[in-house]
Amino acid sequence: MICTGEEVLSGQIVDTNAAWFANLLMEQGIEMQRRVTVGDRLEDLVATFIERSHHADVIVVNGGLGPTSDDLSAEAMALAKGEALVENSHWRGRIEDWYRRAGRKMNPSNLKQARLPASAIMVDNPVGTACGFRVKLNRAWLFFTPGVPSEFKVMVREQFLPFIHDTFEQLEITRLTKLLTFGVGESQLADALSGLAVPQGITLGYRSSLPHVEIKLFARGERAVAALPDFTEQVKRVIGPAIVSERFPSIAREVHQLLLDRSAHHAVTLSLAESCTGGLVASQLVEYPGSSVYLKQALVAYSNQAKITLLGVQEATLREQGAVSIACVEEMARGVRAQLDTDLGLAVSGIAGPDGGSADTPVGSVALALATREHTWSQMLTIPFQNRTPIRQVSSALALDMLRRALLDQPPLAQYGFIKTRLVTD
Amino acid sequence: MICTGEEVLSGQIVDTNAAWFANLLMEQGIEMQRRVTVGDRLEDLVATFIERSHHADVIVVNGGLGPTSDDLSAEAMALAKGEALVENSHWRGRIEDWYRRAGRKMNPSNLKQARLPASAIMVDNPVGTACGFRVKLNRAWLFFTPGVPSEFKVMVREQFLPFIHDTFEQLEITRLTKLLTFGVGESQLADALSGLAVPQGITLGYRSSLPHVEIKLFARGERAVAALPDFTEQVKRVIGPAIVSERFPSIAREVHQLLLDRSAHHAVTLSLAESCTGGLVASQLVEYPGSSVYLKQALVAYSNQAKITLLGVQEATLREQGAVSIACVEEMARGVRAQLDTDLGLAVSGIAGPDGGSADTPVGSVALALATREHTWSQMLTIPFQNRTPIRQVSSALALDMLRRALLDQPPLAQYGFIKTRLVTD
Repeated sequence: MICTGEEVLSGQIVDTNAAWFANLLMEQGIEMQRRVTVGDRLEDLVATFIERSHHADVIVVNGGLGPTSDDLSAEAMALAKGEALVENSHWRGRIEDWYRRAGRKMNPSNLKQARLPASAIMVDNPVGTACGFRVKLNRAWLFFTPGVPSEFKVMVREQFLPFIHDTFEQLEITRLTKLLTFGVGESQLADALSGLAVPQGITLGYRSSLPHVEIKLFARGERAVAALPDFTEQVKRVIGPAIVSERFPSIAREVHQLLLDRSAHHAVTLSLAESCTGGLVASQLVEYPGSSVYLKQALVAYSNQAKITLLGVQEATLREQGAVSIACVEEMARGVRAQLDTDLGLAVSGIAGPDGGSADTPVGSVALALATREHTWSQMLTIPFQNRTPIRQVSSALALDMLRRALLDQPPLAQYGFIKTRLVTD
Repeated sequence: MICTGEEVLSGQIVDTNAAWFANLLMEQGIEMQRRVTVGDRLEDLVATFIERSHHADVIVVNGGLGPTSDDLSAEAMALAKGEALVENSHWRGRIEDWYRRAGRKMNPSNLKQARLPASAIMVDNPVGTACGFRVKLNRAWLFFTPGVPSEFKVMVREQFLPFIHDTFEQLEITRLTKLLTFGVGESQLADALSGLAVPQGITLGYRSSLPHVEIKLFARGERAVAALPDFTEQVKRVIGPAIVSERFPSIAREVHQLLLDRSAHHAVTLSLAESCTGGLVASQLVEYPGSSVYLKQALVAYSNQAKITLLGVQEATLREQGAVSIACVEEMARGVRAQLDTDLGLAVSGIAGPDGGSADTPVGSVALALATREHTWSQMLTIPFQNRTPIRQVSSALALDMLRRALLDQPPLAQYGFIKTRLVTD
């Protein structure tokens, strides 16, 4: 893929087209080999088109088909190919028509969008005035697409994929399995899995993105795809407890689905009491439609006064044990649950820093409790980070993991690889 | 820049390092010429290092310095240079020390991170176990950095920029001014500013990132830098009311600072009542250290029952006017403020979709109220989006904007470019 545009190269916009496209290719079993991002300089574009045309079978060029003077893709392709730009009369008609229907005056500069390299084959753009096209140069088909994301996506789906499947018949079969983990570091996972014999054609990849590490098992070719389920089971046997989802990219999404599934016949209701996470647990669940089925309330009791008034925490508890303690967080979970008599009450209280830590309760300490009508589970952990954002993200994931385990009828308290457990009540 | 990693190439993660780095270079007056993204294949890495080393003076390589088998940057560089990998004993000590201080067991795979190409000059990474380094090949210095964003940023600021300024002496003077706007679309801002004569050497750029559009005024060269303050004032005269911060990248950060500033002598206290935003307003404020000075509580009253029990909303209000109404949101703001008698109470209730809309109150409707001890302001708006995430983000920013305006002694209710005001009480 060749991405063009000064605003992409200079980071004014994050290139979401590239990520979307690469993801789609992967799902189709097509491997992206390289991505080159170039600015709006004619000589750079020409050099890149020629250079890459020797190495790839297909090159998608994104951007530079607009009406302004810094849109140079067609001109650069004509130069690379050593041919002239020629007006495509069919597309000129389309542009004139488009402006007529929109009731807008056509700017003469728009006619530039109908000028294609002489050997180009037009590729339809049903949703805009930028004309797509493709040109053969050396080994490669260069496939030109507009930078506007909505137009790019339509053209890829309706034109590019059919072209690929018509032109290259026997695409290798591929399959991707993702396992989302939490609480164990990337190097510890890699070491744990280093003893497994990886079947030929399967690649094992890791993606760290706080609070998760995602393990990717990618199989290419019929034999590898056939071996994938068995190998996945082997991986799960080794690192099983660290896996928090086999279907979603976040623990919040997994817990949301478990709560919805459990609520299918009879709503399972939840109340949250948050301190250091400050609404993060609630906000992550509310991100998904349908969360109102189970989530009744979330109280961010950020001050001691709010913990007492709102949640019924005892003054003596705060005075004697502090706000980040097993006793306090248990009272928070029970208090918030009782208020609307929900099935579950989940509470988090911790020290996100940079201030507020002490020798006994350093920055990164977090207390968590889950209350049902019958029982309360609680734990106190130390998260080995110093910064506020990762501490809050891991705290939120720890709270959600207690809930996840309870919803799967597992013990809500677990051991985590890099997070030290300090106290547990069960 | 060469970005490595299958997860970046295949779009599993959006490459925010690349955008951040390109932006920083621009501020420094350094032009990025090209960016190449390659996966974790040794031969691709080697070929890219060699090929680009003929064209650039400096190449930043990002990623591939981790402990796992798909981290190949050092090995590829050694191959490109035709030399061996050698363990750096200084860095080995650093890694062992790092694990000792963290109280964690070092995994054997981590020692891989101390193996550098023989001719490499070590570059310090004060915040992680991945060792940076630089190697000269053909025309270029290749400068290797870790993929973890926090480590990458520290290394660029503390090592890369000093290296560049030492090695290449006469960089042109540049300056960048950023104006953060909210509520007016990019094309409307561009149209409004199109009448201004932009002084030579100044570029006007836009960066849209929901819920904001950031305007960037970039000056290159002495005369342009001198003309920048005056031109910035001209821009502010044209689009002034849309500007929500001249110093921070988000309205939440600006409001946090205003609340801290106001609280310097006597704490200004705040309570939040959220419905559709589900803790997002609270979570955005709690992101910053010191928020406990002003934020006392945030109640996510996601169910009608919680609105009644927690916030004292009248059943009749919910029955007759609905949860997304001026009346309900005013009762929410007054109720949450009165509970702990804070100075301010801020409430949001809206329809984030996809369900729950009606002809009268479609998806995107949001009601907002700000209560002080003496007065309540409220408004009902329609956000012209259909998706849950942008509706929640804009709702949160609208609530924070009411607060921001009040803290600046401006009328809390404003007109927004693309968000329709339906009802106002003042």
